[in-house]
Amino acid sequence: METDFVAWLVSRLPADPRLEVPPGDDAAVLRPPALRRTVITVDMLMEGTDFILGPDCSPQAVGHKALAVSLSDLAAMGARPEAAVVAVALPRHGGDALGRGIQAGLEGLAAEHGVVLAGGDTNAWDGPLVISTTVLGSVAPGAAWRRDGARPGDLLVVTGAFGGSLLGRHLAVRPRVREARFIADNFPVHAAIDCSDGLTLDLARMMAASGTRGVVRLADVPIHPDAISRAARDGGTPLDRALGDGEDFELILALPPDAAHGLVAAAGTPPLDLPITVIGVVEEGAGLVAEAADGSRSPLEPRGFVHEFDS
Amino acid sequence: METDFVAWLVSRLPADPRLEVPPGDDAAVLRPPALRRTVITVDMLMEGTDFILGPDCSPQAVGHKALAVSLSDLAAMGARPEAAVVAVALPRHGGDALGRGIQAGLEGLAAEHGVVLAGGDTNAWDGPLVISTTVLGSVAPGAAWRRDGARPGDLLVVTGAFGGSLLGRHLAVRPRVREARFIADNFPVHAAIDCSDGLTLDLARMMAASGTRGVVRLADVPIHPDAISRAARDGGTPLDRALGDGEDFELILALPPDAAHGLVAAAGTPPLDLPITVIGVVEEGAGLVAEAADGSRSPLEPRGFVHEFDS
Repeated sequence: METDFVAWLVSRLPADPRLEVPPGDDAAVLRPPALRRTVITVDMLMEGTDFILGPDCSPQAVGHKALAVSLSDLAAMGARPEAAVVAVALPRHGGDALGRGIQAGLEGLAAEHGVVLAGGDTNAWDGPLVISTTVLGSVAPGAAWRRDGARPGDLLVVTGAFGGSLLGRHLAVRPRVREARFIADNFPVHAAIDCSDGLTLDLARMMAASGTRGVVRLADVPIHPDAISRAARDGGTPLDRALGDGEDFELILALPPDAAHGLVAAAGTPPLDLPITVIGVVEEGAGLVAEAADGSRSPLEPRGFVHEFDS
Repeated sequence: METDFVAWLVSRLPADPRLEVPPGDDAAVLRPPALRRTVITVDMLMEGTDFILGPDCSPQAVGHKALAVSLSDLAAMGARPEAAVVAVALPRHGGDALGRGIQAGLEGLAAEHGVVLAGGDTNAWDGPLVISTTVLGSVAPGAAWRRDGARPGDLLVVTGAFGGSLLGRHLAVRPRVREARFIADNFPVHAAIDCSDGLTLDLARMMAASGTRGVVRLADVPIHPDAISRAARDGGTPLDRALGDGEDFELILALPPDAAHGLVAAAGTPPLDLPITVIGVVEEGAGLVAEAADGSRSPLEPRGFVHEFDS
């Protein structure tokens, strides 16, 4: 953390009892909750890859999204977010105003989730905007949700609906932090992951980590209205869009059947004020399988966003 | 932390008892030391601004420097580093090999300081290399060194020597982690900062935070041999280079006189196997003052690297 972390961020940071040292020092000093594990995640977003500044994407939206994707990772661990630090490379031209907008987006979402913005590193350069968010959270010992805990017989459950996020939800991300904590407090979750890169891609990762196979009942996949719009505009079916578009930032969970049904029954009242849907089951085996309405099965290729190098 | 954090980093992370969940999940879960404060810092380095890849700067050197600058921030808090997460934006072309080199640099320095690499976020794009490091550490409650604690009568003490770091030391950074912990265990440090942007600029920041004036005895400033080489090549005097070049990553400390003299006397034997020098005193007032050998004084303008925006 450099000393030049500019005034527009540090000076506006509120006093927070979790900070032992005032903001703006070489590092932030936090009072961690007693008897909790520390959970940490980092994400980097780059202009042109993760967003394009313009009429559809304000600096505030970038700040919001940058923090939201990291909060979504903490939600996928069943963890409570506590603090965040942010590093930015701002274009030299216009970077000051851009930084202020980003800060407003960060502050709004941080306040919503009780996250203290503990500091950061602000840089100017001649390249495009790059922002990196690190979120620190806490969870009870042994209670963190992992992606490698799915077991044969578990049901696969998702929050929300999928597909077409590029029409706007990929920026206005609602990280499922409160929902995750409510679920963690009330249901035995065996495995969890957030859908960042694509429903099938992220589910395949959970299955690979768990050494299990995922069976997806295609008719039960909740399709977002944006998936229908996107399919009409850019091709593919709405289901294709739901299975592979990504950036939905919903939770994908594996739970024992009774718990899964209980969770579905709890949906619709706060803090679970969103659809919760069983989309399939976990079996012995590997990979993903699609199950049609008539019960017939076919291989399901994981699709989604992968960072590719042409080495 | 995205799920695509590539195999070359996650797969090689060693098992570490501080990690409760295996690397590669949505976030890392750490067992924090009991009864300690959490210290967190983040830095971002960009190609073309902080380094230029080429014959003089390997990918390993970038990985080393990225972690080193954050470790230096933790040293400046008197904190013990525990874990790091790293986010990178790699150029799509050649990014895979570049990433492996960076990883080697990260791993080497992390091992040297007992830091667990807990995870990260790897991205590909068409821009230059950007790397962001977040280091988590710990310190006893109330024991973190701050930059706002200097008091009139304190002596100003520095580790090492200054100037000309661009000739190579700005990459081969030796963060003063062990030295800081030894000093913290044995001497009452009132204020500390690391010299990242420039000796006078960082000292001025300490004085501003503390509400005090810093008097620098110019004849006592330890000048690095690189400062002499740099002055010969690029102009200025070696002293100018020492006062403003920056990226020395040495510690600047304020201590009561007895402690300062004790610290100087302790230099030369491990872990304080480096020069330690009194360069001045803290007075009531504001800003910096240069004191010549004959005792005459003149204003000392803080100089160093500042990120500038042309808004």
